Amino acid sequence: MKRRRFLQQLTTGLVAGAVASPAIAQSQPTIRWRLACSWPKSLDLLYGTGEAFCKRVSQITDGKFEIQLFAAGELVPALQVMDAVQSGTIECGHTLAAFFFGKNPAYAFDSGVAFGLNARQQNAWQYAGGGMEILREIYKKVGIVQFPCGNVGAQMGGFYRKEINSVEDLKGLKFRIGGLGGVILSKLGVVPQQIAPGEIYPALERGALDAAEWIGPYDDERLGLHKVAKFYYYPGWWEGSAQETLMVNQRAYDPLPQLYKDAIEGAAAEQNVMMIAKYDAKNPEALRRLVAAGVQVRQFPRAILDACYKATFETYDELAAKNEDFKKVYEHWQKFLADSNLWFRVVEANLDNYRFLMSAQR
Amino acid sequence: MKRRRFLQQLTTGLVAGAVASPAIAQSQPTIRWRLACSWPKSLDLLYGTGEAFCKRVSQITDGKFEIQLFAAGELVPALQVMDAVQSGTIECGHTLAAFFFGKNPAYAFDSGVAFGLNARQQNAWQYAGGGMEILREIYKKVGIVQFPCGNVGAQMGGFYRKEINSVEDLKGLKFRIGGLGGVILSKLGVVPQQIAPGEIYPALERGALDAAEWIGPYDDERLGLHKVAKFYYYPGWWEGSAQETLMVNQRAYDPLPQLYKDAIEGAAAEQNVMMIAKYDAKNPEALRRLVAAGVQVRQFPRAILDACYKATFETYDELAAKNEDFKKVYEHWQKFLADSNLWFRVVEANLDNYRFLMSAQR
Repeated sequence: MKRRRFLQQLTTGLVAGAVASPAIAQSQPTIRWRLACSWPKSLDLLYGTGEAFCKRVSQITDGKFEIQLFAAGELVPALQVMDAVQSGTIECGHTLAAFFFGKNPAYAFDSGVAFGLNARQQNAWQYAGGGMEILREIYKKVGIVQFPCGNVGAQMGGFYRKEINSVEDLKGLKFRIGGLGGVILSKLGVVPQQIAPGEIYPALERGALDAAEWIGPYDDERLGLHKVAKFYYYPGWWEGSAQETLMVNQRAYDPLPQLYKDAIEGAAAEQNVMMIAKYDAKNPEALRRLVAAGVQVRQFPRAILDACYKATFETYDELAAKNEDFKKVYEHWQKFLADSNLWFRVVEANLDNYRFLMSAQR
Repeated sequence: MKRRRFLQQLTTGLVAGAVASPAIAQSQPTIRWRLACSWPKSLDLLYGTGEAFCKRVSQITDGKFEIQLFAAGELVPALQVMDAVQSGTIECGHTLAAFFFGKNPAYAFDSGVAFGLNARQQNAWQYAGGGMEILREIYKKVGIVQFPCGNVGAQMGGFYRKEINSVEDLKGLKFRIGGLGGVILSKLGVVPQQIAPGEIYPALERGALDAAEWIGPYDDERLGLHKVAKFYYYPGWWEGSAQETLMVNQRAYDPLPQLYKDAIEGAAAEQNVMMIAKYDAKNPEALRRLVAAGVQVRQFPRAILDACYKATFETYDELAAKNEDFKKVYEHWQKFLADSNLWFRVVEANLDNYRFLMSAQR
């Protein structure tokens, strides 16, 4: 199209807009919300996802729908974000559903569980496999509407003050780990402790913890864990995908104009892909820096993985026997997982493994 | 928040909106655009991505910015979408940049190249590793602004009328494959042919082709390729990630209100994650159906992969020596690839491989 023709069309549009179109500003309310997240500002990729989400919603509503962001502790403590959304103290929160495993173990599937879906599989299950819908039924009971909003990918297995060579070495290990991962590890004698990110470093330093897992190289480096524990293990099998969730109070959400609901849905999905892109771009160089700083990277021995795998599915079966919500989601999820694993193994993993091998030899 | 209190806030907002806020409808023009895509409607996940993109843009602009979608051939043929965007015949297109490898080989990096980044790595490179910016400089020369908008993930290696057991079997093979993959394979004696999806089936049926690759189980099944060629190979090493691109005419884009530019950017990113979620959810069951229909799934022998890997990087080096744009993107991309592969191998692949193995044994 020639520039002149385009400008002509634009001008025609302008006139048509002023005359015939509904006036958005007159029909849409100015709304101010508050979003509390579970992250300190220093964890900039997690906190930054909330920032980018709020910015996008504001942009596409021309500033009519403004959501103000608060870091962990500014309005509510990190681990009370869900309670605050549920009670309506705040309209929405950005957090990890797995933190709230104690309220209802089914929430764990909204983050990703041990030996479960990887980040891509998690999106497939949530968006196109019925996962989001089945979780909505669970969240509805507590008056919350949820949206996937970020993922950090597969995690590292944490920093340890001593080497972990056998299942025996897990016994009595005071380990910072939350939710379902902690329950599973307690079967193997680990003493799990769920504490907020800001408190991990001092606890590890003074020996109140023997080990601590948080996320991966980029964030773990920011918490400074490598300064007080030398051994850095992989993989973080309890979180092959750690998806973050935007939780919205149902009573605040329902009366929103459709336009604003669409803005929330679109912006949350956009940030879902943006967060993991940032982690995937920044983790490699952070791992390199950690290794240069003297960190010893170690792989969990196969015997430990096997023991953990067994304990994991035993735990799922026990939870399913006790909790209807968990059972319902677990059955749906388990079928998806089996089919998806088969497919990913054939194509994605096959090609990736060959590429990674050849790449390391170049 | 109590419902009453929220409604009160909403009402206050409404009043404030009517009085003090800028009237969006009066300041924003009504705009009508046309988007041509390279997909027939029958390839519903590809075509559906364009539909969902147009719908979201309309929704979040309250119907002020309407983009009308056209399937391949309705306005322009599948393989002329980029030309139509460049000339301004249409304002935007949804296509695979690799189709236009002949114009400039650097475009191939916007889709994903042989033994290159997987879908997650591609997003990391594009959004957070500088890839999108460096590609923007290339596209700018032809008056186009591009946005990643969909990905199908690692592909299958296509349907073959006979088994491929050695590098020798590739010689003289009339193979439907486009762009850079075809150039690489021609080094090994393959006769590559780039033809639009609708023409693949008849060509394979009448023997004008010995083999054809398109995407993966879900789409290949729709093209009916398994009815005329029995052997289905993996992995499709020439496209470990096939990212689709939204191409926008720069002269149409530049004068857009910022609000509409933001809507395009956000909706394209949203569809980027949505498309691959759908493929990842639907490919497993499609592969199952194909196998039930008698398709023989085969893995490319290691010797073939090794020959292809060698030919691939030789081709890149040759292209970099001849083409400045290719060289510039290649150097940037290659550094990212090496770092990213190392990281993905340590954590993601390590955990995935263990999970997939155990999952297959359950």
